[in-house]
Amino acid sequence: MTEKKLKFWGWGYDDQTLTEVEAKGIAAHISKSTGIDSNDYIAPPQIHEICLPKAKISIPNELKNLVSQNDYDRAAHTYGKSYPDYIRAFNRNFESCPDAVAFPTSAEDIIKILEWSDKENTAVIPYGCGSSVVGGVEPRIGNNFSGVITIDMRRMNRVIEVDKISKAARIQAGALGPQLEDGLRPSGLTLRHFPQSFEFSTLGGWIATRSGGHFATLYTHIDELVESLSTVTPAGTIVSRRLPGSGAGPSPDRLMIGSEGALGLITEAWVRVHERPKYRQSSVIRFKEMQAAGDALRTLLQTGIWPTNARFVDSEESRLSGVNDGSYHMVLLGFESASQPTDSLMKLAQECMADHGGQFNAAAERDKTADSWREAFIKAPFRREGLIANGIMHDTFETSITWDRLAIFHKEIKLATENAILKATGKPGHVTCRFTHAYPDGTSPYFTFHAQTKPGHELDQWRAIKTAASDALIKAGGTITHHHAVGRDHMTWYEKQRPRLFGEALAAAKTKLDPAGRLNPGVLVPLENGREISLP
Amino acid sequence: MTEKKLKFWGWGYDDQTLTEVEAKGIAAHISKSTGIDSNDYIAPPQIHEICLPKAKISIPNELKNLVSQNDYDRAAHTYGKSYPDYIRAFNRNFESCPDAVAFPTSAEDIIKILEWSDKENTAVIPYGCGSSVVGGVEPRIGNNFSGVITIDMRRMNRVIEVDKISKAARIQAGALGPQLEDGLRPSGLTLRHFPQSFEFSTLGGWIATRSGGHFATLYTHIDELVESLSTVTPAGTIVSRRLPGSGAGPSPDRLMIGSEGALGLITEAWVRVHERPKYRQSSVIRFKEMQAAGDALRTLLQTGIWPTNARFVDSEESRLSGVNDGSYHMVLLGFESASQPTDSLMKLAQECMADHGGQFNAAAERDKTADSWREAFIKAPFRREGLIANGIMHDTFETSITWDRLAIFHKEIKLATENAILKATGKPGHVTCRFTHAYPDGTSPYFTFHAQTKPGHELDQWRAIKTAASDALIKAGGTITHHHAVGRDHMTWYEKQRPRLFGEALAAAKTKLDPAGRLNPGVLVPLENGREISLP
Repeated sequence: MTEKKLKFWGWGYDDQTLTEVEAKGIAAHISKSTGIDSNDYIAPPQIHEICLPKAKISIPNELKNLVSQNDYDRAAHTYGKSYPDYIRAFNRNFESCPDAVAFPTSAEDIIKILEWSDKENTAVIPYGCGSSVVGGVEPRIGNNFSGVITIDMRRMNRVIEVDKISKAARIQAGALGPQLEDGLRPSGLTLRHFPQSFEFSTLGGWIATRSGGHFATLYTHIDELVESLSTVTPAGTIVSRRLPGSGAGPSPDRLMIGSEGALGLITEAWVRVHERPKYRQSSVIRFKEMQAAGDALRTLLQTGIWPTNARFVDSEESRLSGVNDGSYHMVLLGFESASQPTDSLMKLAQECMADHGGQFNAAAERDKTADSWREAFIKAPFRREGLIANGIMHDTFETSITWDRLAIFHKEIKLATENAILKATGKPGHVTCRFTHAYPDGTSPYFTFHAQTKPGHELDQWRAIKTAASDALIKAGGTITHHHAVGRDHMTWYEKQRPRLFGEALAAAKTKLDPAGRLNPGVLVPLENGREISLP
Repeated sequence: MTEKKLKFWGWGYDDQTLTEVEAKGIAAHISKSTGIDSNDYIAPPQIHEICLPKAKISIPNELKNLVSQNDYDRAAHTYGKSYPDYIRAFNRNFESCPDAVAFPTSAEDIIKILEWSDKENTAVIPYGCGSSVVGGVEPRIGNNFSGVITIDMRRMNRVIEVDKISKAARIQAGALGPQLEDGLRPSGLTLRHFPQSFEFSTLGGWIATRSGGHFATLYTHIDELVESLSTVTPAGTIVSRRLPGSGAGPSPDRLMIGSEGALGLITEAWVRVHERPKYRQSSVIRFKEMQAAGDALRTLLQTGIWPTNARFVDSEESRLSGVNDGSYHMVLLGFESASQPTDSLMKLAQECMADHGGQFNAAAERDKTADSWREAFIKAPFRREGLIANGIMHDTFETSITWDRLAIFHKEIKLATENAILKATGKPGHVTCRFTHAYPDGTSPYFTFHAQTKPGHELDQWRAIKTAASDALIKAGGTITHHHAVGRDHMTWYEKQRPRLFGEALAAAKTKLDPAGRLNPGVLVPLENGREISLP
């Protein structure tokens, strides 16, 4: 229902699909860099190759203009963008597709759709733009429902109101990153929340999944940018007050932030925005040892200086993304400000890096290495499609840990993942690490791995690796996710991480807001029959 | 059960009680400054003057070493430190006292006490050091219970573990401010959370009430300083993971932060600590107009500079506290750092103030006016006792609002309070305002008022004023509390402010954690019979 069509099976628009030659080129580069071989190229699926199950519900007349059951819409709302999502899409398997896809234009529309779902006893999957890499939007919902309606929020995409004085804006939840930035630009304002999925994810999705953004320190998650929320639940609508801060009991917004569509559909938010930066600087610091880079970042964060960017990338990941020759680890530092030069802050930060053996070019101008890293970062999800088409497994997982445990933690997780790849595929894989965000008390290691697959066994192989890595994360004291969310894929480990009684309290809250348990069943709260929904 | 005895009826230790002469001196100063007359002096109560109701439960043998029923302990745990608490204490009225006061030394002790409360069907009031000014610890609990046990956490007061690398410490919830700072000092660390109650409140109390601290920006509430929590509930124990950041569903800690003893007893926390500051600067900026001062603060906060201190005090409040002659409003600015000089930040901040007409001494050294304000701030709760003893009503209430609404909001609240004082007392009162904390999108106005009372009618007069002020706050879009908490006194307005369905979800969560509803009944969640507990 949008003008430019998104791929129904992967990242980005149809016209951004890699050609066979491009895909093979990317795979060849990775093979050369890692020793991991390709398999035969498989072309991405086309819609006429897909056989969808017959829809189990029909659209009532009064909702005809809001709901679609065409093949493209149903197929395009079957998966997120995880590795197993790609594999199943390349296998032309879309059997878990929704029965209908609704495109509401207002909270009132959503209420009507929820009433319909109640009448038909269907599950409801809230959907932003489908960038979930954790099974957050796939209709795997157990056997309690007679069908599934996916609610795609993208028709609710306007910046409704801008408060230039308080620097806040009221924005509909279905606004994609570029849409909301376009809406803010005439006021000279910006949200500056740039997750990797920025182009293909929505404000509501960010809030529902506690998205991690552009700011590597301080405002790491969308959480702190939320001033108030409007949410539609099956039990009614929840609207919180616009307040800069409050101490009136547990925060109502903090229950909805991270609720992953299991408690309600966020319809709009007042978010805290900023003036567009006028001063920007970046610097790349080179380190021989990972430990020294971590110590430098830790020391910097503990001084009370808050760089906009403060990201560690290990040497192997730098090499693989073509940013350097792999002879050193990097710390990417950035400062930006709308009101004053950032030179003195950059100088302090660089001095701190130098104290720990970091090397850099003294000229604190915008560093080209930082630009090429940014380029590689944005392109990564597109390049991934080329790897998968050529049978190379590529996946990422992320976590967080306090500084005191970082060294052992990193070693254990890397080793567990390498061992699991070897066991599952019979060949050594390739595991790299960066830190996406940094805190005074810790950081968020983000692992990327590549592995060789055996055609037809990709899902089994991936499941074994994902399970081993996730087990290791939880055993070593980390979180199952720092900003990718829980979805269905992480439920097994989320339940281990989360205090049991908190889980029960959350389930009790869900029962009040979503009495029939229709909203994103199996996510955050286990199904009523206790059946676990986890890895596909 | 502590060595130095706290007043059972007011702020501080017994030996800090004002003499009649001191009390009259303070009242005379306020009378002279405001035109509000004193009544006859009433001496503070003495324990032998108090007649307590007979305890409705007896202590089982196995708990004898943990529980007290002596008059001092029961009287000292009857009230917090609100105006109506003082009035009733001065009236020698302690009829709502608990039946027993328990002093656990461990989570295991708490579990035993909860088992006892279950057997006896009593309510349980979690108690830090009783600094609540909102009826948070008074056993007003309706008719569902056969008695009340107050659990005083102050025997659990140790710093258990310090992680110097991640800058975090594991501290028992009953530690008073000075105790936890003493425990951190040998490591060169500090929490630097200094609510006005610092000396007489506990870490657990701060967390349970979303306390507002020393930092006027950024880390305004204790919330952000909490890394993980251990909580005992009637249904079991909840321990969250130590994580610098996480995106795994709604935060378990954020449900407990601000739970005001209604969901569980926080037993310990890992908190984020800091190196002790080496560089400190303060500056007092003078403004003719409140609007200009607000604009200056707003602009400063929106630049991404985070002063440690950034507080507005209006001219009348400055005059009354003896800090200046009342001819100007003040903004108190402060910067501090453990690692680098703060001169350049102070200079930027002062320039921003000057842009809005603020005047200051160019020498950015530690300003004496700031010191005398700090002195007045710390002494205020002690001085208040002198006013109340002489029949002058003195109370404060606080809120928050976005910048766009501030001017009208301030005007409406001040007017509503002044009108209510006039109506309730027949004489003009005196209402002043400061902003305790500042955010990019708003600030937290904090009102102080004085009023003349008619002996024997103080509670009625206060109730009328408090009701009018609270009604105005909620009507004008503010929060009923920015950092004083909800307690019993604010329940009427909290229920208006809070989205109804969030309240129901919270009640459902409470039912899971506290099935019999024993914990701090009437706070955050209304009593089962729907009876409202609000102003005394």
